[in-house]
Parts: sequence; C-alpha cells; structure tokens
Amino acid sequence: MSNREVRHHCGLFGVWGHEQAALVTQLGLYAQQHRGQESAGICTSDGIRMRRHVGMGLVNEVFSPSILERINLPNAIGHVRYSTSGSSCEMNAQPLSFRFAGGQVALAHNGTLTNARDLRHECEQRGQIFQTTSDTEVIVHMLAEKACREDPDGLAHVLGRLEGAYSLLFLFLDRLVAVRDPMGFRPLCLGRTPSGAIVAASETCALDILDAEYIRDVEPGEIVTIDASGVHSQRFGPESPSRGGACVFEHVYFADPASNIFGENVHRVREESGRVLAKEAPVDADIVIPIPNCARCAAIGYAAESGLPLGRGFTTSHYAGRSFIMPDQLQRDLAVKLKLNVIKEAVRGKRLVVVEDSVVRGTTTRGKLDALRKAGATEIHLRVASPPLRYACFHGIDFPDPSKLVATNRDVRQIADFLGVDSLHYLSLDSLLGCVKGDPQHYCTACFSGDYPVTVTVGLMTGRHSGVSDRLPTG
Amino acid sequence: MSNREVRHHCGLFGVWGHEQAALVTQLGLYAQQHRGQESAGICTSDGIRMRRHVGMGLVNEVFSPSILERINLPNAIGHVRYSTSGSSCEMNAQPLSFRFAGGQVALAHNGTLTNARDLRHECEQRGQIFQTTSDTEVIVHMLAEKACREDPDGLAHVLGRLEGAYSLLFLFLDRLVAVRDPMGFRPLCLGRTPSGAIVAASETCALDILDAEYIRDVEPGEIVTIDASGVHSQRFGPESPSRGGACVFEHVYFADPASNIFGENVHRVREESGRVLAKEAPVDADIVIPIPNCARCAAIGYAAESGLPLGRGFTTSHYAGRSFIMPDQLQRDLAVKLKLNVIKEAVRGKRLVVVEDSVVRGTTTRGKLDALRKAGATEIHLRVASPPLRYACFHGIDFPDPSKLVATNRDVRQIADFLGVDSLHYLSLDSLLGCVKGDPQHYCTACFSGDYPVTVTVGLMTGRHSGVSDRLPTG
Amino acid sequence: MSNREVRHHCGLFGVWGHEQAALVTQLGLYAQQHRGQESAGICTSDGIRMRRHVGMGLVNEVFSPSILERINLPNAIGHVRYSTSGSSCEMNAQPLSFRFAGGQVALAHNGTLTNARDLRHECEQRGQIFQTTSDTEVIVHMLAEKACREDPDGLAHVLGRLEGAYSLLFLFLDRLVAVRDPMGFRPLCLGRTPSGAIVAASETCALDILDAEYIRDVEPGEIVTIDASGVHSQRFGPESPSRGGACVFEHVYFADPASNIFGENVHRVREESGRVLAKEAPVDADIVIPIPNCARCAAIGYAAESGLPLGRGFTTSHYAGRSFIMPDQLQRDLAVKLKLNVIKEAVRGKRLVVVEDSVVRGTTTRGKLDALRKAGATEIHLRVASPPLRYACFHGIDFPDPSKLVATNRDVRQIADFLGVDSLHYLSLDSLLGCVKGDPQHYCTACFSGDYPVTVTVGLMTGRHSGVSDRLPTG
Amino acid sequence: MSNREVRHHCGLFGVWGHEQAALVTQLGLYAQQHRGQESAGICTSDGIRMRRHVGMGLVNEVFSPSILERINLPNAIGHVRYSTSGSSCEMNAQPLSFRFAGGQVALAHNGTLTNARDLRHECEQRGQIFQTTSDTEVIVHMLAEKACREDPDGLAHVLGRLEGAYSLLFLFLDRLVAVRDPMGFRPLCLGRTPSGAIVAASETCALDILDAEYIRDVEPGEIVTIDASGVHSQRFGPESPSRGGACVFEHVYFADPASNIFGENVHRVREESGRVLAKEAPVDADIVIPIPNCARCAAIGYAAESGLPLGRGFTTSHYAGRSFIMPDQLQRDLAVKLKLNVIKEAVRGKRLVVVEDSVVRGTTTRGKLDALRKAGATEIHLRVASPPLRYACFHGIDFPDPSKLVATNRDVRQIADFLGVDSLHYLSLDSLLGCVKGDPQHYCTACFSGDYPVTVTVGLMTGRHSGVSDRLPTG
Repeated sequence: MSNREVRHHCGLFGVWGHEQAALVTQLGLYAQQHRGQESAGICTSDGIRMRRHVGMGLVNEVFSPSILERINLPNAIGHVRYSTSGSSCEMNAQPLSFRFAGGQVALAHNGTLTNARDLRHECEQRGQIFQTTSDTEVIVHMLAEKACREDPDGLAHVLGRLEGAYSLLFLFLDRLVAVRDPMGFRPLCLGRTPSGAIVAASETCALDILDAEYIRDVEPGEIVTIDASGVHSQRFGPESPSRGGACVFEHVYFADPASNIFGENVHRVREESGRVLAKEAPVDADIVIPIPNCARCAAIGYAAESGLPLGRGFTTSHYAGRSFIMPDQLQRDLAVKLKLNVIKEAVRGKRLVVVEDSVVRGTTTRGKLDALRKAGATEIHLRVASPPLRYACFHGIDFPDPSKLVATNRDVRQIADFLGVDSLHYLSLDSLLGCVKGDPQHYCTACFSGDYPVTVTVGLMTGRHSGVSDRLPTG
Repeated sequence: MSNREVRHHCGLFGVWGHEQAALVTQLGLYAQQHRGQESAGICTSDGIRMRRHVGMGLVNEVFSPSILERINLPNAIGHVRYSTSGSSCEMNAQPLSFRFAGGQVALAHNGTLTNARDLRHECEQRGQIFQTTSDTEVIVHMLAEKACREDPDGLAHVLGRLEGAYSLLFLFLDRLVAVRDPMGFRPLCLGRTPSGAIVAASETCALDILDAEYIRDVEPGEIVTIDASGVHSQRFGPESPSRGGACVFEHVYFADPASNIFGENVHRVREESGRVLAKEAPVDADIVIPIPNCARCAAIGYAAESGLPLGRGFTTSHYAGRSFIMPDQLQRDLAVKLKLNVIKEAVRGKRLVVVEDSVVRGTTTRGKLDALRKAGATEIHLRVASPPLRYACFHGIDFPDPSKLVATNRDVRQIADFLGVDSLHYLSLDSLLGCVKGDPQHYCTACFSGDYPVTVTVGLMTGRHSGVSDRLPTG
Repeated sequence: MSNREVRHHCGLFGVWGHEQAALVTQLGLYAQQHRGQESAGICTSDGIRMRRHVGMGLVNEVFSPSILERINLPNAIGHVRYSTSGSSCEMNAQPLSFRFAGGQVALAHNGTLTNARDLRHECEQRGQIFQTTSDTEVIVHMLAEKACREDPDGLAHVLGRLEGAYSLLFLFLDRLVAVRDPMGFRPLCLGRTPSGAIVAASETCALDILDAEYIRDVEPGEIVTIDASGVHSQRFGPESPSRGGACVFEHVYFADPASNIFGENVHRVREESGRVLAKEAPVDADIVIPIPNCARCAAIGYAAESGLPLGRGFTTSHYAGRSFIMPDQLQRDLAVKLKLNVIKEAVRGKRLVVVEDSVVRGTTTRGKLDALRKAGATEIHLRVASPPLRYACFHGIDFPDPSKLVATNRDVRQIADFLGVDSLHYLSLDSLLGCVKGDPQHYCTACFSGDYPVTVTVGLMTGRHSGVSDRLPTG
Repeated sequence: MSNREVRHHCGLFGVWGHEQAALVTQLGLYAQQHRGQESAGICTSDGIRMRRHVGMGLVNEVFSPSILERINLPNAIGHVRYSTSGSSCEMNAQPLSFRFAGGQVALAHNGTLTNARDLRHECEQRGQIFQTTSDTEVIVHMLAEKACREDPDGLAHVLGRLEGAYSLLFLFLDRLVAVRDPMGFRPLCLGRTPSGAIVAASETCALDILDAEYIRDVEPGEIVTIDASGVHSQRFGPESPSRGGACVFEHVYFADPASNIFGENVHRVREESGRVLAKEAPVDADIVIPIPNCARCAAIGYAAESGLPLGRGFTTSHYAGRSFIMPDQLQRDLAVKLKLNVIKEAVRGKRLVVVEDSVVRGTTTRGKLDALRKAGATEIHLRVASPPLRYACFHGIDFPDPSKLVATNRDVRQIADFLGVDSLHYLSLDSLLGCVKGDPQHYCTACFSGDYPVTVTVGLMTGRHSGVSDRLPTG
C-alpha cells in the first residue's frame, strides 16, 4: 500500500517529570512519525505555566533546538497528525490548548468521535464558542461547564458521553491524564525512562528511542492519572466487556514493525501472516519480491515458509524531503517512478511472487506491478497479507470512499484482471485473526468484514452546525 | 511628542456593499496608519462566508494585492492596532472573528473596557472559553449566550453592561453595525463612496483617500446598522447626556491634521492653539521652529500671530522602514539623531521659539532641544500647545505610568530647568478648550486635569482571572 | 518633485579604524538613505580578512544587529543604491568585492562611467570574465591586470582611462582609498569621529549622525589613501581645471538640507533660491504652501521675502514602510493620495502660492495641484525654485527620457496650461547659479541648459557586448 | 556504511531538445539524489538566452513547478552536489555559469581536479578574477583566454592540461558537450527519451525515470558534442590506454542498485559480492541481517548462497525530512536510533550474520551492532562485502582522513574487537574485482589498495593562492 492512499491517523506521546521533556517528546513523536506527517505539536508545563508550539510539517521541520529550549518544561504532551487536504490547517494542529475557569488544559487525541457534531451543537446552544473545527475540542467545552467542574468525577462523566474511538492525553497544570476508549480502538501504552520519568505513547517504538522500559498498556475504559504523588488508575467503562475494538489494521499496515501493540509484536504478526499466506497459496516461482516497504515482513515469512529465495525488485528514494509536486503534464505512472525504480537485472526473465500488505484503490499497486512486467518478469503472482478492503472506517482511519476501493464491486478474479497478474490470493480474515494472539472478539475488522463493533451514530453523515463541514477533522 | 512615548490606540474602518471592499478597507486603514502601527487586519463577508487576514506590521506590509484578492468580498471591516510590547501578538490582532450558535461575527474595537475583567470572569464561570487575552472578546461571549441570542435587543443589553470607551464595528453575515459608547470617547463617522457604498471610519482622512463624502458622526450611545435595506439607527444610551467624553488629546496629538473629528477640523484647532499660545506667551526672538512633525500646525499659528518668521530646524528621515534596532553600546541621544538632524545653518546664532504639541516624559523633547543648542542656538523658548500631562488615561490611550511623566512632580520652572530652556509656557486648559467649538462639558480632559468624566471601576488595577495579565490589552 | 520620478543615485560611506566600524557604516548609510533606497551593502576588513553583506531594501531592513556583529571588523565601506526596475538586483548591489592576484578589494561607486562598455569589451577580449552587469566592475578588472599590478601608479593610470562621473571608495586589506573624478561631479568629503577614526561620506549629514567633525572635501582629481600610517593625497587630474562639474541638482533636490556639499549648506542655498524666486516673481496671495517635503526650504525663503504667511496644505504619510503596491483597477490619482492628503480647511477659499523645487514629468505635480483646487483653493500660483528640466544626465542621475519631461517641448505658458495653474514661474538659471557661492564654471547645469562640461562618448547609446543590456547599471 | 561518513560526490544530468527540459532535468537529478544532497541546480538555454536556478537542499526543495516553468528552455544541464560543511555554499553550487568574450557557458562537474590550484594561480597572474572557490571554475577561465577562443581545438587543449577526475557537462548557447577524463574515474552515459531528445547522466537510473533508452557510455578521453546537427564524438586522450580508473567504490556503495555503470548492473555486482562472501566466510547461524539500506543486495546474495534465511533486523525512518539537529546533551548513540530501530522480536536469541557493504570509521557500524546485541542477539558475525578501507581518494570521494579510518592501523582481529563481533570477514580485493566483468587494470581500487592509477600532483596538499582554503571544494 502507498502511504498516499490511506491517511495515517495520529500518534501521541506524553512525559511527566523529565528535565528535557520537550526534547524527549520530540524524540517520541519522531519515532512515531509514520503515524502522521502533516502537523506536529508539543505542549509543556511546570505546574504554573504552559507553553506550546505546533506547526505544519514533519517533526524535525516543526521543532528546532531553539524552539525546544524555549518551550522546555518538565511535563509535556505531543501529537503528530495525519495528512489530508481540506480542513487540515494549523488551527486544528494538536495538542489543542485552552484556558478556562478550571485553569489550563492541553489535549491530544488519536481516533474519531462519532457523535462530536451533536455534542458541539449542544455546547453552542448554551453559548459556548469553538475555536477550531476539530472534533476533539468538544471534550474541553464539556469539561469547562460549571456542573462538570464541580463534579469530582467530571472527566469520567464527559468520557461517558463520547462515542467513537479515542486515545487521549490531557496535560493539566498539575497532572497528565491518559485515556483509552472502552473498546480500545487505538493503542496507548505506558513506560518509564532510565531517569524514572513516566511516559505514554501510542506505540512502543517511541519507548525504544528513549531506552524507556515498557510498563503496560492503558486498558480500554481506563483513566490513568500521573501527578506528583504517582500513577493512579480509574475505570469509566465496563469491567470485562464481551467485545473489543483493537484495530487489526494497525498490525497489517499502520504500526511500526518494531513496535508491540495490543500485547504483541507487529513484525511477528506480519511475518506470521506471510507464512500462512505461503501455506494458503503456494506457487511455483523463482523469487519472492516485497512491495517496499510495508510488505517486507510478510515477504520474509512467505520466503521462509515457501523456501523460495527472497529478492529485491525495487530501489526506493530515501531523500524525498518534501513531496514532489508533480505537474499535470506528466503521465500518471511517473508517481510510481518517483518512489520506486525497478532493478531490471533482478526481475528480468523471472517468475515472481510479489507480496503486498494490503490493496486499497489498486491503482498504485498496479503501477508497481506494471513496472515489474515491463522490466521483463515472466510471471507475477500477487499475494496480499490481508483480506480485501471493502468498508469505511469510522474509528480513526481515513480510507477513500468505499466506492473507490478496488475490492468493493469486484471479486478476486476481477481484481486480478484489473491488476494484470497471473494469480492473486488474499489472506482470509480467519487466517489473519489466527496470526494475532488475542481473542478475535477483541479486534475490529470492520474495514474487511463490515462488522462494526459498535453502532455508529447516523448523525455522522448528516447535519451541519455553525458552518462546519460535513465531516469534522478527527484527532 | 515622539510617537514612541505614547502608544497610539487604534483605528477602525468598515464598508458595506463595494466590489473592491477589501482594497477599499486597506486604503481606509492606510490613511489611518497613524492610529496604530503594530498590527492590521481585515474581515470580509458576502452574506454567506467570512474571510479574514490579520498580521503584525504596517498595513502595506500585512496586505498584498494577492491577499486582498483572495479575501475580497463586498462587505468588510478593518482595524489597525497600536504598538506595545507585552501582550501584543497576532492572537490579539483585530478584527477578532468567531463562529457561534448565532452564526458568525467579526469585531473591531477602539477604546478600553474598564470592566472587562469582571465580565470575563462571569462568562468563564458559566463555562465559556476565551481565545484571546483581549478585552474586546468578552462582548462576543455575551452575545453568544442563549438569553442574548433570543432577545431582539440583545446587542443593546450587552452594550448596556460595558463600561469604558468603545467605538465598535461588528460585521455579521447580514449586516455591519457601528457603535459609539454613551460618552463618545473615541471618534467614529459615516460616509458614502462615489459608488454609493456606506463606509464607517475613525477619522475623515479615511474618507478623503476614497473620495468619499462625509455623512455624519455616529452619535454617542448610538447603534447604526447597515444592511441590504439601508441604514438604521437605534439608541442605547441616554438621549441628552449632560456630560460627554470626547478625547481632547485626539485634537492635540492623535488625529491627522486633515481629519475632522468631533465636528471640527484638527488642523484648525491646532493652528488656533498656536495663535492663542502666541498671545498668552509672546517672546522676542528671531524665528519659530516646530518640533517635527506634530507641532507644525501650532507653529504656523504661532508664527502668524506673532509675526515672527517660520523656519525649519530639522530634517527628518522619511525612509525609516522598519524601526532601527539600536544596539546597547550606542549612547542614548543617538535615538534622536536617527529621527532628526539639525540644520545647523538655520539655527546657529538664532533666538528660537520652539513649538511642541505636548510633553510626555520630557527626555525626547530635551534631546531635540539639546541638539538645537549644540548647533548654536543662542536662546530657546519652548511653547507647548497643551497643558502639562499629569494623569493616566483609562479610555484608550496608553500613556506611561504617571510617575514617569515630567510634569507629575514638577512645576513649570522645574520642567524648564529639566529641559534646559530659557523660557517655557504651556497652553492653559481653558485656552485649549477655547480652541474647540463644542461645549467644554463634552470633552474628556482627564490626562491634563485628573477630572474623569465617569467613575472607573476599581477592578481595573486588581484581580487576575484565568492567568491573564493585570491589564488586559485594549482594542 | 516626487522621489519616484527621478532615480536617486547612490551614497557612499567609509571608515578606517573604528571598533564598531560596521555599525558606524550602517549609521552613515542610514543618514544618506535619501540617496538610494533600493539596495544597501557593507564590506569590512581587518587587514587579513574581508566580510560582506548586501541586500535589497532599506538600510535597516538589510542590516540587523546580529548581521553587523557577524561582519564587524575595524575598516569598512558601504553603499546605498538607487531604485530602478530592470537590471537592478542583488548581483549588482555594492560594494562589489573581488579576490585577484593582487589580493582582495571591495569597491563602492557613485556616478556613471560613460566609457564602461568599451573598457569592458577590451577586458573580455583578453579573457577576463565579468561577474556583474555593473559599469563599476571594469575598474577592478583593469586593476587586476599584470601590468597594472606591477605599476606603483597603477590606480592612477586606471582612473586616467575612465570617463564620466565617479566618486569611489576602495577597501583593500591594508588601506581605504577615496577618489573623486577630475570634474568633481559628485560630492565626497572626509571627517573624523570623536574616537579619531577617519570617515568618508557623500554628504556631511552622515558625519552629523556620528558627531564626526568635517575635515574637508576630497578634491576633484584627487586620490586620498588612508592606512595605518595616516592620510595621504595624490593627484591624477589636472591641477587647476578651468571647468568643473559639481552637480547643481544636488543642491536643488538630491542632498539633505542639513548637509554641506561643494562647500556650502544645502538648506541655505534652497532658502536663498526661494527668496530670489519671490523677488523675480511676486504675487498677490493669501498663503505660501510648499509641496512636501523637498520644497519646504525654498518656501520658507519665499514666505520670508514676500511677507506672506507660510501655511501647510498637506499631511504626509510617515508610516509608508514598503511601498504600496497599487492594483490596476485604481484610478491614477490615488498615487498622490497615498502620499499626501490635503488639509481642506487650510486651503479652502484661499489664493495660494505653491512652491515646488523642480518639475519633471509634470503629472505628479499636476495631481497635487488638482487636489488643492478640489479642496477649494481659489487661485494657484506655482513657483519653481529651479529652471525647466529639459536634458538627459550622463553623470549619475537617471532622469526619464527627455521626451517625457514636461518642459522639453513646451514653453512656460503651455506648461502652466498643462498644470492648470493661474500663473507659473521658474527660477532662471543665472539666479540659481547666483544662489551658490562657487564659480558658475565649476557647476554642471546640463539637465537645465544642455551644456555638458565634458564630451560624452558616443558609445554610450550603442554597442552591445556579451549580452549586457544597452545601458549599463551605474554605481 | 552511513551516508554521513562518506561525502557523496556529485551527479550530472543534461538534455538537448526537449519541450520540458527543465522538468526532465529535475527528474534526472531527483533519480540521482543519492549522489549529492547538499545543493541542486539547473541551467537552461534556447540558443539565445540562458536561465539558471541553484539552491542549497534537496532537488524537490530547490525546485518548484513555478521555478521550473520560469527557467524552462529546450536545452539544460543539472547538478546535485555532496554535503559538506566548510566551503560549501550557494556560491559554489553548480552548474556554474559565465559570460565571456566567447559567449555564455554553463558547466557541471563530477570529480576532482588535482592540479586546480596551480592552474588557478596561472590564470590569476594573468589578471583573471575568480568568482567561486570551486576547482571547476578554472576550466572556464582557460576557455575564455584569447588563444583558446581562437583555436578550433581549444576545449581539447584545455582538457589536456587538467589532472584528476572529471566527468563534465558544458552547456553553450549552441551545443551541449559531455566529457569524461582519460582514466574514466566517474561514470557518464548517454540515452534517448521517448520523444527523441538526447540525454546525458551519471547513472542509468536517471534514464529509467524518464523511460529513456540507454545508448552508450561516454568513453574515457572522449568529447561528445550534441547540437542541432546531431551527436559528434572527438577523442582527446590516448586511444587504448593500458590502465583505467573506473571507481570500484561506485559499485560497492555509491551507485543506485538499479543503475548500470561501467557496463554492468550494480545490484548484480553487489549480490555476487554477497555470494562470494558466503563462500569465502561461511558461518553457522540462524539468520542473515543486512545493515540498511546499502547492504541489502549483498545480503540477498549471502543468504541465497548460504541457504540461511534472510531476515530483517531494523526498521528505518523514511520521514526524515531535513536532518535531525541533535543537541549536545544527548548521548552519542542516539544518532543511530534516529535512523534505525531494532526489531527486538526478530533478533532476540538468534545467531546473526550481519552483512555490511563497507566500514569507514567503524563507530556507526559499532552502534548498530551494539543495538542488535542489546536486543538479545546471541552471536554476531559481521561480513563486509568489500576490503578494508585504508587510503585517501583524490578523485572525487571525500573520505575522512585516513587516520580516522578504523582499518588504517588495525588488523582484522583488532577491528573485530573494536566492533565487538564474534567473527569478522572482509571480502578480498581479488574477489571484489572478480565480481565485476571488466579487466581489473581498468578499475581504481586506491582506497582499498593504495595503488593510485595516476601520479597525484604534490601541490594538492600545499600552496595557498588568493586566500582559498587548502583543499578546493570539488565538483
């Protein structure tokens, strides 16, 4: 899959009690840059003041040593945000931060609130004025209300009214709060740095860059509060829910192979999916070629299981910098060439097993396969390490409209024709779920199966309050 | 006086129904640049959308033709803001704009709300969240409340709760609203462009640049609404108040000599003040020299009345561009030289009458007089076309702290010693009030007399809500 | 005259042996900003290294304290350059600096070399490669040639081959050299700072800002060398020339009124020209109004001589910052309004004597006079303190093409009609020359009289070498 | 190897006769971005004019569609330049361009001229003035001399005087000229686009991105001239030289695996080197892990030959953007973590064969190996697909000083200790030369063997002319 096809969602990082909290947060975000390349931001606090810097661009474009020095205070939260075109702007860059009668708060969000529109309408009717078009902001307006401010369980009550997916980090002047929604759609874990500071991150790869030790995941439906007196836990969701919503697509595509999420290693799941794929759909061929870069883990598994040699079909550009602005007069397939170049000598005259992690629109994959065929591959057998993608996600991933997905109105034979391959096999959903350790009931597979773990508010597709566009930008 | 000594306040401009509303507003602000050099902003609307651009800097630094084209819609309001250091930033740059349950609104303010802190506290207690640290924002939060939204006289009720000085321009999607506070502290007038569009401006010089015809002033305590059906007036203050607050310092220093404000021409008032000064304090001398540039009108009057020739003592830098950043190692009096250079040939061996409009700290004036003496002037007789400045302003002018004013703890003899002049005369307050046409009871002379036309809320100097600094930045 | 009509030429400043040489040079250039607003530059040296910073824009836009600190070395030369459109760019910004077999040299030039094209062609034929399109560069290529390097009088020989106008400052690693061409077209003087450093400047106003003492002018045909051993003089031109070329237009318009040039004060010459004008062409009127800002000195003289009161007809914008980019759809006369606003009360119903320093195309002056008439002036009598401008300048001023000058094909009556005035009088050339102290034979009056003090090489208008445009940009 | 350790040299691209020559050149440079990341530049011509744009940064940072449109003319040459600190600046960014008596010329250079200093001195003595500190500029000054301009074989004579490595592209108004030095140190090839335009490029990967067909390599000692009449060849070096200088390190590290250089595919050579390495130094282990990214081809060969499974030990950051500015307070090994993260699950408890392409200082490689060991690898066997690096390169590669190379004063056992590996094997030089097709006498292996194919001028390390630093920046 190309990272232009599916908008990555977001990545969170927080740290409590570190001399270099701003820098540590920059590193934690940098390690999670794959979760969002559009904007980056950090809010810091020392119990008295807050400082904030956000900007459009990659983490190390937005932050310089002098900016970090200027905002450095011992507690911090940070956010990287996905790339999109429309309502994406600095106004919506997170962490959001606010002053209100209850003091100051900064907030970073990964996920989508499916009832944000209705909640916002309610607040506006009371006279509250919103500053952004982000779905996340409504949480703070609910916290600012007098009733909530005076209720010791105010935060839990606010969370109880939210629907959808949300991993959240709040930075108050006197505490850092980490929350995961009751279904646990998005990952969020806790760790401890060598100096003893507590950190929170979407993925464990952010712990690795800091040599931080993994403590545990924040549980679905849990509020973890970190303050001067230590780490405290409170539940606001049901104790032992029968279903969960851990996003299986995090394992298939989003998360970094070095990370552990939902209790297990991503590389291992992907390599295992390649092994199962080789068992489900073996083929007589000369060489196994991964589509760079996401499918490399699955290809290793496929090669190991099949006994076929693992080769390399493409070189990739690692000096991309800001993305190439392609003029209109250039033919479409140049887009592929800007990212990849086929190593002709490696594929000429060969029968290839090409391993891909997932196929979205199909056009990008087709472009890459075309390039292999032009270079002289005699057979191309495509093996996809996940089932066909056919349904929208309402919980944090911005897939194209289902009508644009190659698998929506095609069977596998038709997809093979579309892609121009000699054979095509998708990993079955059961096999995919067999590759993860957890109970299948605790994963959300809606994008493959259409089986949504929670009912989605109808209002998501309708209504229009205070001029905000149909679909609110999500955290 | 130097324009570094007294922070200018702000200038307003609005236009309803003009094809080039953004450009017209830029011109209207440019003509009023002397009222504020720190930030500039324009909001436009066409009944459906609003567009906004604000920035730090001068009008023609903030706006380019391409920006104007991008934001051009037929209705607009604009604002230039004074220069200050602390809380001045793009966040507070006006016009402010908001979305709320009542729709969209943009707001530009000239003046100071003396009870803004208390009103803000009230709103925050209800759960409202503020976006800026400006005193102006509270007006919109009060408008957004359910009770106000449902009241046809909501705006008048909100205004009824405000204390202090405020000339305001509101741009709603369907109307432009111009308001002056009941005391009429700051000027605001209406005009009509050659194409028939209605405009509102702080000073008539903004009408001149557009060849617009002057209609009338907005009255103290009046709400003027301009919409598709025409121009409508409503009163919210007392009908015939016994006192008024027209700022006499606008005539002395702030306003452009070409402007008419409070019903008469600024140049005429200043020239007359120079004539009266010559009568009050004649002197045997060779030549009359104005301190550039503000005192030129008064110097013309002095020369005409006294029969002494009017000369030129200084050349001024007209290519200043952004202000010169002076390194510490340079002696203080360089500051004067960066602005002015004495024409030695014109003053050497001469007995000078030097005319100044007003004296604030005294240090800048002293520097200029020193330069004249070094150049060989044999006598210097300073004539100031206004009374000694001794009191703070709570209604829109950011004077230095009274303890820093040269006249606060000195009598005229001591001031003359401080300034090193051979003789010194300040125009008396009665004489100054004699130079304006209106009833003296309708002018605020508090900075000279300490006689404030309204009681100022004690809270202005105390209290601290939601971390905002003691004194809110003013519109 | 408007400073958009005649391209100002250039200003020079140099200092030898000052701890803050970069800052001192910035101040010296800032004081001469009226001589060039397009680019500014400084080169510094300490005998071993050179540092350079140039940029497009005003002096205090191009230089910041941190830049000054970075380039500060004890010897420096600087340059401000006029504004033009075509070949003006950072490549041509001065001082130019070069490394060559003779070491390093930086060079700043005020004037125009009329045989630059031929000299350049000669150098290029030998194999030399030019870096800029400036006429100034050829001087360095001539200095770099082996024969010149080995000749102790190399510089004098190079200067002997130059034709045209040139005041020059060279900074070598071990000396600063100041040169004026044998006709002395452009001013250049020497001074001494309070700390004892020697400075060189186009005008004495640059000395004033530094409290530097004036020593003397560099003589026409003189090379002044300043080095560790002191100040040395050498002549390369004829000892007592019968004619000189001191530009009388410097007195009329260019130079700052506070400066002394060619041995006398500019303000005094202008005031005197106003007095003579009042004698030559008296008129029965109510008030004398100068066109801001250049004509103010002459207007003072006119008022004093005539006994008429001196008034003020316009307010001017002092906050212009970068120039207003005027969109096409705006009527032409807005250009005037952006600079000036008429004080209607001051001119309504009055008979005006309007004093102008000079008239170029006539359109700008006409616009200003139109504005006075629209404001209600009953009579306008224009008095111009110099003769009609009719001829091109080849020695440092970039006038419009003669065909565009209002006086080229019109007599005074026709010009009066064009400008729409009730009467018009130009100061006669003899009267103008009577206002300066020097021998009339030592002034260049070619722009008024067509009498050029030297023969101009025909090649100036023809020829084209190595793709350079017809007329070389001048220093 | 890390691309911070060895400064990449440069990449060239040229095109003659293409409607979109500027865009085509941008693409050709983009595909060769790995050859230089510091600056990029393009010069274009249409036979009458030249246009140029250069800048610091990556190709798609320096060029935007609007810039390309502005400079687009049908003939073009471009250049990407390596990253370094000192004398690297925009002044030296290539293509350089010049006007001289012979017209206009632009020039791009890959290589190092070892006698540049002497040639420059010669030119300067004649009076020529240099504009840059680049070694490349001297070529143009030699071309500009009268004798050379008048000689039909002038270019060949100039080339005959150059020593060192140079692949060159000249763009004259009427022709594009491609040159390779007689030893053929650096690659340069010719191709033809689908539209028939002739292109020249350092590597064939630049042809692939354009779907251009490979024609042939420019031969060592050949001048290829492309003009309106076609493609012409001329020799200036010996016809059948007994030795050549094709840089074997291009195959080991520099060139893109998809490229063909010196007549064969880079990936194939590297894969073969991995196979031979497995034969030379087999080891009993669990998995083969390449150091990303350069060693992947060799690792594929090692795995295939050894029968061991190929795995993945690291994830890499592909969103680096501008490089991370690392504050001092961070421990050194963070540098490795910013680039790579170990997939702990993949290496824990495993015996690893780690394949590296080459080892320079050793510190970066050691950091990566440390990370593997910390993650739980039980054995690490390092296999390097090239011999120990021990000598400086004078022909286009900016290695660290030999004293900094890990292999300079250590034998293999000591290196293994330094790196902390269980076993270490370097590919022998003979084996490496066995992997390439050509005659070993036609490769330069000096960095491994110290056997320089030509005598290097002593002057390279000494002398100092006109203030230029000891070692000239190279093309």
